[in-house]
Amino acid sequence: MEFTTVEGGVCAAKGFAATSCEANIKYEDRTDMAMVYSKNPCECAGTFTSNVVKAACVQWDQKIVASGKPMHAVVVNSGIANACTGQEGWDACGATAAAVERALGVPADSVAVASTGVIGMQLPVDKLVAGVESMSKTLEESAAAGTAASKAIMTTDTVNKEIAVTFSVGGKMVTLGGMAKGSGMIHPNMCTMLAFLTTDIRIDKALLQEAIGDVVKDTFNMITVDGDTSTNDTLLIMANGLAENATIIDKNEDYQTFREALFFVCRYLARKMAGDGEGATKLFEAKVVNAKTKEDARILSRAIVGSNLSKAAIYGCDANFGRFLCAMGYSGSDFDQNDVELFFESENGRLQVFDHGTPLAFDEDYAVKIMSADEVTVFVDMHEGSEEATAWGCDLTYDYVKINADYRS
Amino acid sequence: MEFTTVEGGVCAAKGFAATSCEANIKYEDRTDMAMVYSKNPCECAGTFTSNVVKAACVQWDQKIVASGKPMHAVVVNSGIANACTGQEGWDACGATAAAVERALGVPADSVAVASTGVIGMQLPVDKLVAGVESMSKTLEESAAAGTAASKAIMTTDTVNKEIAVTFSVGGKMVTLGGMAKGSGMIHPNMCTMLAFLTTDIRIDKALLQEAIGDVVKDTFNMITVDGDTSTNDTLLIMANGLAENATIIDKNEDYQTFREALFFVCRYLARKMAGDGEGATKLFEAKVVNAKTKEDARILSRAIVGSNLSKAAIYGCDANFGRFLCAMGYSGSDFDQNDVELFFESENGRLQVFDHGTPLAFDEDYAVKIMSADEVTVFVDMHEGSEEATAWGCDLTYDYVKINADYRS
Repeated sequence: MEFTTVEGGVCAAKGFAATSCEANIKYEDRTDMAMVYSKNPCECAGTFTSNVVKAACVQWDQKIVASGKPMHAVVVNSGIANACTGQEGWDACGATAAAVERALGVPADSVAVASTGVIGMQLPVDKLVAGVESMSKTLEESAAAGTAASKAIMTTDTVNKEIAVTFSVGGKMVTLGGMAKGSGMIHPNMCTMLAFLTTDIRIDKALLQEAIGDVVKDTFNMITVDGDTSTNDTLLIMANGLAENATIIDKNEDYQTFREALFFVCRYLARKMAGDGEGATKLFEAKVVNAKTKEDARILSRAIVGSNLSKAAIYGCDANFGRFLCAMGYSGSDFDQNDVELFFESENGRLQVFDHGTPLAFDEDYAVKIMSADEVTVFVDMHEGSEEATAWGCDLTYDYVKINADYRS
Repeated sequence: MEFTTVEGGVCAAKGFAATSCEANIKYEDRTDMAMVYSKNPCECAGTFTSNVVKAACVQWDQKIVASGKPMHAVVVNSGIANACTGQEGWDACGATAAAVERALGVPADSVAVASTGVIGMQLPVDKLVAGVESMSKTLEESAAAGTAASKAIMTTDTVNKEIAVTFSVGGKMVTLGGMAKGSGMIHPNMCTMLAFLTTDIRIDKALLQEAIGDVVKDTFNMITVDGDTSTNDTLLIMANGLAENATIIDKNEDYQTFREALFFVCRYLARKMAGDGEGATKLFEAKVVNAKTKEDARILSRAIVGSNLSKAAIYGCDANFGRFLCAMGYSGSDFDQNDVELFFESENGRLQVFDHGTPLAFDEDYAVKIMSADEVTVFVDMHEGSEEATAWGCDLTYDYVKINADYRS
């Protein structure tokens, strides 16, 4: 299939408006609230953190997605996560949604909310409500508004993350856009962190959920920054149907086209998050091929990018390949090291360092050159089957520690 | 029961000699080989890494322990791990043991070997053999020799780790001593890293194995430095029977006495390893009480000390308690956050920060004071049962990254 990337992020699809504001929830002198809105009702789907300790907003959104009712808006704040906040936290979600109902005339139970930031701190409800009132007057269907929203939801992210694509479904042009934020407490155990997708496609709600649940497995669930699965991970997709394609009600060619576009968008945002992990200087990719099963390939590649020792070696451009084999060894996947080949790859070259159980002599300078690129891949051939998977992470740096040793101040 | 700590480490028990030498395997200007030896044959037991990628020396020792034959010696080197080294690595184990056989007249299959250091690099066999030949002439049953051995096996450890205790079994004085080394690639998934215990007790081999396997669960398996389960983790215990107690052949009072001493020694060494984790400035302890099951208590406490975000908060004296709850939430143990109480504890005081689902207001200065101690405890009351467990780790610091970004150079 063909698709074209376009401007606009969450505002790219027809009928979606966005906005943001400085609500001063915790940050000062920057935007910290965003809203995405569709006047037309949307089918919605989502995936959420597997953490037992779920933030109030996650519980709120799960209820909306499960209800089967249409969604009209999502309100996001950065700075405070609204997790571990008891009844008061739940009430903050309700107050936010009620403010949207008053301002825009859509039902409170059509308004999703999402929060990211410090856990265990209460949200200032008056500031949230004031933020909603202010934002309801500045909604715009413009690329600039989409970009501004993607900036307002950032915490320790260094760059905003957005993308949009257009593609053809049954002769109609469909648009799918999205925004996401990282960049710490990120580990794949469901969807990961906050990501919001908007599309004007017409699709059955159950198929929308199936498509996103399926795509997440090889995109957002394959990234890790620090092994900490957040209390707040939320991925929401809203589809308002304005593309006027024949509604997708089974897994026909149109569904496959949509699924491919969804994969492209999710993979782009996931890679962006991994490469912008807290303190990261590089994107660290692990590609495992010829594994026994798909799940083995996923487990092995995730173990490689998840290991602190591997991540520190990537930071130091140290071709200490034993750490990658060690991580594979404790991953939970069973294999024989005598079957394994391991390579380092980047735009600067490709180098084999391990061959069926035996370490190879190699040129250290060449290894450093390969590992000095902005994107470094550890490529592993298991020679045990035909399944493959790719996982993404980042290096472990001084700055990760610095950012997290006193995050609250 | 009562026991007394004594000098001597692995040489404290009757009939155990030790030595060390500068073999220049990878390090220069420091000792890097050690040997522990008992002329009297020893019952032996061990636990080994669960990593699928097992070092050659681990496979060698597993074979010896499983054989049922007596053990006489263990030879250890630091600098190179002899992991991912294929047939050549296995042959290096054999050559080392054969050198002991030639020098000391004990069978090669009574000689355990252990290695720690870089993975994927071959050991220089000539240097190993020369080291054994040299060491076989300098064995001593002295406290100084035990201490010297504990220093020779260090890698990134900043302090050596040894202990010995005496206790009474059926009117006979029994001694149990040990040494261990950390301090990176440490994560509980079997025994952890290298630890060697010697005792003069008389005990049946199967009971020795049962005792050590049992004690490991709440000692070495409850520590973590970085979540990386090594390829080389080895815990060996040798019992030469010179205490002349009535041989322990069932789980009588004598067995319980020995088990308690073993627990004390293993807990001491495990805590020492955790507190001396790579780059660590503090021991970070998590105590979980009133959990549903023992396994829940273990999983929860390990998740707390294993979280990078928790570890960075401990480093920064940041009472960001949401990170601990978040780690508990993704641990795999199911619980209701509304049952949970969470406290910070140290020699400087005790402070509750979370009470049955609700964050408490607290004095930040007092929190910093508590967290500034050398040993900081996160105490969690689950209010769901009556089981408890304690896990040990360390803080995550700039130095951890520094040590690991270029470990090989």
